Amino acid sequence: MARKRVYFFGNNRAEGSSAMRNLLGGKGADLAEMTNLAVPVPAGFTITTEVCTEFYENNQRYPKGLTEEVASSLAKVEKVMGRKYGDPVNPLLVSVRSGARVSMPGMMDTVLNIGLNARTLQGIITQTGNERFAYDAYRRFVQMYGNVVMGVEDEAFEGLIEAKKKEKNVKLDMELTAEDWKELTAKFKQAVKTHTGQDFPEEPMKQLWGAIGAVFESWNTKRAKKYRELNNIPEHWGTAVNVQTMVFGNMGNDCATGVAFTRDPATGEKRFYGEYLPNAQGEDVVAGIRTPQPINNVGKTDPNLVSLEDFMPQVYKELTVIYKKLEKHFTEMQDIEFTIEKGKLWMLQTRRGKRTATAAIRIAVDMKKEGLITKKEALRRVPPADLDQLLHPTFDPSAEKKVIARGLPASPGAATGKVVFTADRAEELAGQSEKVILVRIETSPEDIGGMAAAQGILTQRGGMTSHAAVVARGMGKCCVAGCGDLVVDYANRRFTVDSLSVNEGDFISLDGGKGEVMLGQVRTVMPSLSGHFGILMKWADETRRLNIRTNADTPNDAKVARGFGAEGIGLCRTEHMFFEGDRIMAVREMILADNVASRERALAKLLPMQKGDFIGIFREMAGLPVTIRLLDPPLHEFLPHERAQIEALAAEMNVPVEKLREKVESLKEFNPMLGHRGCRLGITFPEIYKMQTRAIIEAACELAKQKIKVIPEIMLPLIGDVTELRLLKKDAIEVATQVMKEQGIKVKYTVGTMIEVPRGALTADKIAEEAEFFSFGTNDLTQMTYGFSRDDSGMFLNDYLKKGIFEKDPFQVLDQVGVGELMKIAAAKGRSVRKDLKLGICGEHGGEPSAVEFCHRIGLNYVSCSPYRVPIARLAAAQAAVKEEANKQKAKTKKRPARATVKKAKVAAKKSKASAGRSKKRG
Amino acid sequence: MARKRVYFFGNNRAEGSSAMRNLLGGKGADLAEMTNLAVPVPAGFTITTEVCTEFYENNQRYPKGLTEEVASSLAKVEKVMGRKYGDPVNPLLVSVRSGARVSMPGMMDTVLNIGLNARTLQGIITQTGNERFAYDAYRRFVQMYGNVVMGVEDEAFEGLIEAKKKEKNVKLDMELTAEDWKELTAKFKQAVKTHTGQDFPEEPMKQLWGAIGAVFESWNTKRAKKYRELNNIPEHWGTAVNVQTMVFGNMGNDCATGVAFTRDPATGEKRFYGEYLPNAQGEDVVAGIRTPQPINNVGKTDPNLVSLEDFMPQVYKELTVIYKKLEKHFTEMQDIEFTIEKGKLWMLQTRRGKRTATAAIRIAVDMKKEGLITKKEALRRVPPADLDQLLHPTFDPSAEKKVIARGLPASPGAATGKVVFTADRAEELAGQSEKVILVRIETSPEDIGGMAAAQGILTQRGGMTSHAAVVARGMGKCCVAGCGDLVVDYANRRFTVDSLSVNEGDFISLDGGKGEVMLGQVRTVMPSLSGHFGILMKWADETRRLNIRTNADTPNDAKVARGFGAEGIGLCRTEHMFFEGDRIMAVREMILADNVASRERALAKLLPMQKGDFIGIFREMAGLPVTIRLLDPPLHEFLPHERAQIEALAAEMNVPVEKLREKVESLKEFNPMLGHRGCRLGITFPEIYKMQTRAIIEAACELAKQKIKVIPEIMLPLIGDVTELRLLKKDAIEVATQVMKEQGIKVKYTVGTMIEVPRGALTADKIAEEAEFFSFGTNDLTQMTYGFSRDDSGMFLNDYLKKGIFEKDPFQVLDQVGVGELMKIAAAKGRSVRKDLKLGICGEHGGEPSAVEFCHRIGLNYVSCSPYRVPIARLAAAQAAVKEEANKQKAKTKKRPARATVKKAKVAAKKSKASAGRSKKRG
Repeated sequence: MARKRVYFFGNNRAEGSSAMRNLLGGKGADLAEMTNLAVPVPAGFTITTEVCTEFYENNQRYPKGLTEEVASSLAKVEKVMGRKYGDPVNPLLVSVRSGARVSMPGMMDTVLNIGLNARTLQGIITQTGNERFAYDAYRRFVQMYGNVVMGVEDEAFEGLIEAKKKEKNVKLDMELTAEDWKELTAKFKQAVKTHTGQDFPEEPMKQLWGAIGAVFESWNTKRAKKYRELNNIPEHWGTAVNVQTMVFGNMGNDCATGVAFTRDPATGEKRFYGEYLPNAQGEDVVAGIRTPQPINNVGKTDPNLVSLEDFMPQVYKELTVIYKKLEKHFTEMQDIEFTIEKGKLWMLQTRRGKRTATAAIRIAVDMKKEGLITKKEALRRVPPADLDQLLHPTFDPSAEKKVIARGLPASPGAATGKVVFTADRAEELAGQSEKVILVRIETSPEDIGGMAAAQGILTQRGGMTSHAAVVARGMGKCCVAGCGDLVVDYANRRFTVDSLSVNEGDFISLDGGKGEVMLGQVRTVMPSLSGHFGILMKWADETRRLNIRTNADTPNDAKVARGFGAEGIGLCRTEHMFFEGDRIMAVREMILADNVASRERALAKLLPMQKGDFIGIFREMAGLPVTIRLLDPPLHEFLPHERAQIEALAAEMNVPVEKLREKVESLKEFNPMLGHRGCRLGITFPEIYKMQTRAIIEAACELAKQKIKVIPEIMLPLIGDVTELRLLKKDAIEVATQVMKEQGIKVKYTVGTMIEVPRGALTADKIAEEAEFFSFGTNDLTQMTYGFSRDDSGMFLNDYLKKGIFEKDPFQVLDQVGVGELMKIAAAKGRSVRKDLKLGICGEHGGEPSAVEFCHRIGLNYVSCSPYRVPIARLAAAQAAVKEEANKQKAKTKKRPARATVKKAKVAAKKSKASAGRSKKRG
Repeated sequence: MARKRVYFFGNNRAEGSSAMRNLLGGKGADLAEMTNLAVPVPAGFTITTEVCTEFYENNQRYPKGLTEEVASSLAKVEKVMGRKYGDPVNPLLVSVRSGARVSMPGMMDTVLNIGLNARTLQGIITQTGNERFAYDAYRRFVQMYGNVVMGVEDEAFEGLIEAKKKEKNVKLDMELTAEDWKELTAKFKQAVKTHTGQDFPEEPMKQLWGAIGAVFESWNTKRAKKYRELNNIPEHWGTAVNVQTMVFGNMGNDCATGVAFTRDPATGEKRFYGEYLPNAQGEDVVAGIRTPQPINNVGKTDPNLVSLEDFMPQVYKELTVIYKKLEKHFTEMQDIEFTIEKGKLWMLQTRRGKRTATAAIRIAVDMKKEGLITKKEALRRVPPADLDQLLHPTFDPSAEKKVIARGLPASPGAATGKVVFTADRAEELAGQSEKVILVRIETSPEDIGGMAAAQGILTQRGGMTSHAAVVARGMGKCCVAGCGDLVVDYANRRFTVDSLSVNEGDFISLDGGKGEVMLGQVRTVMPSLSGHFGILMKWADETRRLNIRTNADTPNDAKVARGFGAEGIGLCRTEHMFFEGDRIMAVREMILADNVASRERALAKLLPMQKGDFIGIFREMAGLPVTIRLLDPPLHEFLPHERAQIEALAAEMNVPVEKLREKVESLKEFNPMLGHRGCRLGITFPEIYKMQTRAIIEAACELAKQKIKVIPEIMLPLIGDVTELRLLKKDAIEVATQVMKEQGIKVKYTVGTMIEVPRGALTADKIAEEAEFFSFGTNDLTQMTYGFSRDDSGMFLNDYLKKGIFEKDPFQVLDQVGVGELMKIAAAKGRSVRKDLKLGICGEHGGEPSAVEFCHRIGLNYVSCSPYRVPIARLAAAQAAVKEEANKQKAKTKKRPARATVKKAKVAAKKSKASAGRSKKRG
């Protein structure tokens, strides 16, 4: 075999390591790494992600030789653990779990206790002396395997348990006896036979392979696909399969199981934080069915609970040593899972812990201060898009709040919305732009879509590490979990708190930081950007090369953006000003004008209003550049289209209905996107652009007289040919010169262009002869480069994403291959003619982190984005600079390969040849 | 002066030559060349085209030093001609004419007899002893100068002449005496004063500069601009001004004037062909007012006329020697003008003669056979677009014809249309897609637009070299001129022939080859492509590298195209088949289908029809490749949109109106161009493309069984990402494999893609991994690259052409800079991955000669165009190959410059430096 497909770990030595994350998946890599760190890990092995890919490429068949590799690794496990798989006396039981490159909580199926059958069960009974535990384990195995591998609905099994409990008149599973479980196990097997027509497999190796297959198949379930879609995880990554010795936290009262974070995942505070359940299996903690106990006394809020620190002080001490070792080793906050089997601590998992944006920032800043990581690394640690959570309002402390219930502060944030009780309804209403709060007894992976669509999540049951809490934190959603005051009534679509009843559609507000549930919509205030956030932003500003501007059309937007650190305006859309208030009437008058003179009369009415707008914006941006785009949209956007509206307007304007109708008709276009708009308006109606230029320069002059520094940049949209720009630039300069003469003062201004038409990019060398700056309008550029309009692509874009034709929606994530290629061409051609050509981007991609990095890479001067995305862009720009430097370092290292490396490579090549030869012989 | 601005010619030596056409204009260059050839040319000088450009760039002011240069050249003329400008005893008179790089007949103003005033007139009288001639010349000068230079309407002068004739009770100008003309001249001057408020200039130098200025100004008259627009002549070329000694063909009966072609401009036959008028000035021939006499007996049709050959045998002999010398020297058919002054022959002009396409072909083929030019040169001589004239039907000889009148066969062709009497009306009706025949007493330059809009031109007066005839031949329009049987009655919008009256709007037909005017619409037949045409096409085929295919959707189109030499089909649009007859119902059923199964049922109905189409087309194209594009247009194009139609269709299809309306509504798009179409349909409805693939392969298999060779190429439209292609190609291969298995026979086929979306071009390297061929869809590519749709660009494209932003409509002439850049990128990227990638073009540019040349240059394998354009493309492809070779030769020569050349260049550089120094001193 040329390719190793199975990696063993156990007894402090593993074949893999954390460097092999892509191959072994996150969990497999970390188990290997932990093993190598001499942390107590139950032995096992990992089947690589490549096998998953091969499996799907090869019509769901396993590659040759896999069986042999699995067998040989299993033998190593048996040796290390001192047990034998399928042995009736000393049986080894294993778990089979998925493990993709990145953690996908709850998305992949797991099967435990594999290897149990009538014969091995006896071994377990003999060894543990605990018949009830053994039969419980057995029925758990049959139930899980029957559900996950054989596809029997879990209700079938749960129904049998309920029936049994009824029969015995007991309430809890705990109250059932060994004999009950034994009976139930037999019934479970019968249920499997009834539902599937197949016998439940008794043969341990058949069980093992069934479970492995189920993991690979679960990679392509609907919910896994949905998660990948939401998280931009490519399909071809695949999942690894981890087969690991079972250890049990539920063998008795000297057993326990728990999960913990090395720091507080909500705030980032440096304290060991977690939960455990005595005499329980791991699922019991995560599933949120039993309320867990705090891991230590610091985290104890309820005096009735017993911490692990008090319950098993020795084990807690051991755990403390291990978590510190792990965090130090990975230099990252870890999310760990452990099981205590008869007093012996086993680590089942460690991985990078999910956290809120607040926590991510604090941890990064703290770790830098602790000397664990560098400043650059700290910058890399915070996903820029996550900052979004912090940039939105929180509840106004002075607002009146009617707190109706309290739960766990599972994921911070302030959310307000209409109550809904199902994920589907949440998606439906969110699709209609409604804000909703998803209320569930507890959430499950099927709810992912609804959670993403909701403003916040409220659950009746479950702890800080329950499904709802973990997923919400990952999404940056506000979540209040385990709110026991609530009684959720799905059937009647309502929940009650004592006598209060809240129905679907009623407004509630959630404070995820405090765990408060409030009635109605509570007033919010702007976020504060100081503290750890401020420090990180300062580091970002010191590191980045790109300037960050904002897209703002009003003085207020400009002010907000400047507060967020914007260094100017990259796009001020003048048409937004045309729609406001009574201006629209002057605009319509202008459109209806039959000749230049009457058009100029109408424009003269608009002039003072536009000038006023610019004065307000310039004032907010004093000392910083302001790029103003002249009128862009087609004129018909300013006119009504319905008969009744046309008639009303005609009356209001005192023009014949027929005339107005004709105008509306004559302005109709087959493809407005590709019609009479942008600079084409300026060419046919030069007086419009002249008025706008006059407004800009008059405003600039007025402020200049007040000693306020104004840097106007006049931007012409939709330029495809230099001649368009030449003509319009000439007009603009003429007007500007005239105005400055009238005003008796000079202001500096520049004239540039949007690059948003493919031809503009392709002929950028010509256009740069006239343009003093380019601003990439990637919204239109994306539409024209792909040849589909944003408005119409809904008809097929979902199909494209589902069928994997597009990995991402190009309107959200910049298409670097196609649209980006045009940007590169334009940048290179433009700078070839004008060395100091200022380059920016003002499309909506301007605040999207991957686009920011791309813009950095191709040498843009700035990105411009909406005010709330400015901090995101600042961080993304810093990360781009850090990444670039790292790549340069890498390139340097590559260029001069050390002797040892060369030697190693040669040896590897020889080996691979040799093994290829062997595999041929075998084949 | 660094730059020489005035070039003298005379007495067999000229400062210029025909190589300086850009600088001296066509006329100036040819006058210089003729002078150098020792042909008798009245001395004169040419002011360069650069002066015209400087004049317009410099606010209509002349460059410094021009006055001195003109004065010094005038002195040389005086010396050579033995006369003095402005001299009362022995006065020199001059003409001032325009002369652009290419001939623009009738477009530029001319002033004759300049230098006449009360004093110089006496010298003329004394020297000629012909007072009547002298006064006639004087009044002509005042009339022409008053009109052209001073802007007085010609009617003012003509009115005075008419009044005079009435007063004297005579009918013809000839009947007026010297005294009459003397009187009239005085009145003319008075009229100038009345109309302009200025005195008529008496000072000869003032007259000269006035005329020069008028020529430069006439470059920018409306009609000159219109001509340039129609003929794609750039504005910056400018015109030269030719100042030349006057010679007179109207001094008496030993004088004459004429124009001639060295070969027949209508048929190309090798015979000297021309007309003259005794005792007349040149304008009299061209203006078509007097019916001219044939130049020789071969051309004599009317026994009452006297040929120049008989009238002045000695001069005719001299003329024969000269025309042969000129044709041999220029190796081109010449259009010459001459004047005989008192028995002395003067050549006034020679230039490349305009000709019909038939003549162009015959002349090129004959000249090659005569050894005058090479085969390659012969190919270059025929403008490919002109072939269009020959590729359209002629009248069916067996059709019934009612010939109502006969005129001169001024420009061949068959034309049918409604009679109109004004150019405006012709343009108006043509704008409504009506075919019209423009009927005029005689045409003038103001009629150019109407002539271009008409199918054919019919005039009552004027000869074979009249304005109508020359312009019509240039345009390739059918023209019957000088049809004296006609009486045109503008006032009543009709013409009469004897008792027959034909009104505006009545249909007539013209046979420009026979000079026949027929009543009604006469049936036409296909052209024959043999003879000289066949020879030229054979040479083209031997020379070209590009293959020529056709765009054809029906067996008949395919057959026509193959007859024209098409080497396969480059684009077969399957949707055209969807609209035909009862198929549209099956298509609609398919669109209304709610699920895959019912969609497949509807498609099953279409399958046999599509298959039948393909069988027909494959059969016609046996042995040649056929590229079939799968369904492209958005589905809503197949449904009605008006309420009434929707209701009718719902009834017909037996579906609820509401369902149909909803479907129509749901398919509506904001920008259909950028919507759900092309391969996007294939992605969402794979069954449509599968049906089409099945139809193609089943058809191919059926013919293959009949031993007919079929080469199907399946083409996927609107591909922007390789993943689209990968998915659809997989489907196509699956279906094809299945069909061939069913049919038990194999056929070769390929799968490729349109490149018509910018992203497709930009990512061509990825796409070429899957595509076996690319076909550039330059219609869509142009729309998306420019970002304007063809349907909507009407709103501004005219403004763009008028304001000079675009030189040409990019939908007619391929934009090589922008769209072409994308093609180059795609070709290079595509071939970098797949060396043998077949590249073609199937947009409407495929038959446009400049695009064909571009496609050759960037290495395409073929161009595909409409059937009637196939011969044009064949010739254009040959010209591209010839040009490429010529450029290679040029490049070689440039690389190794001869020693002499280098030396010359150095000397030139030194000279230019020296003169620059001098000019500084003077400045």
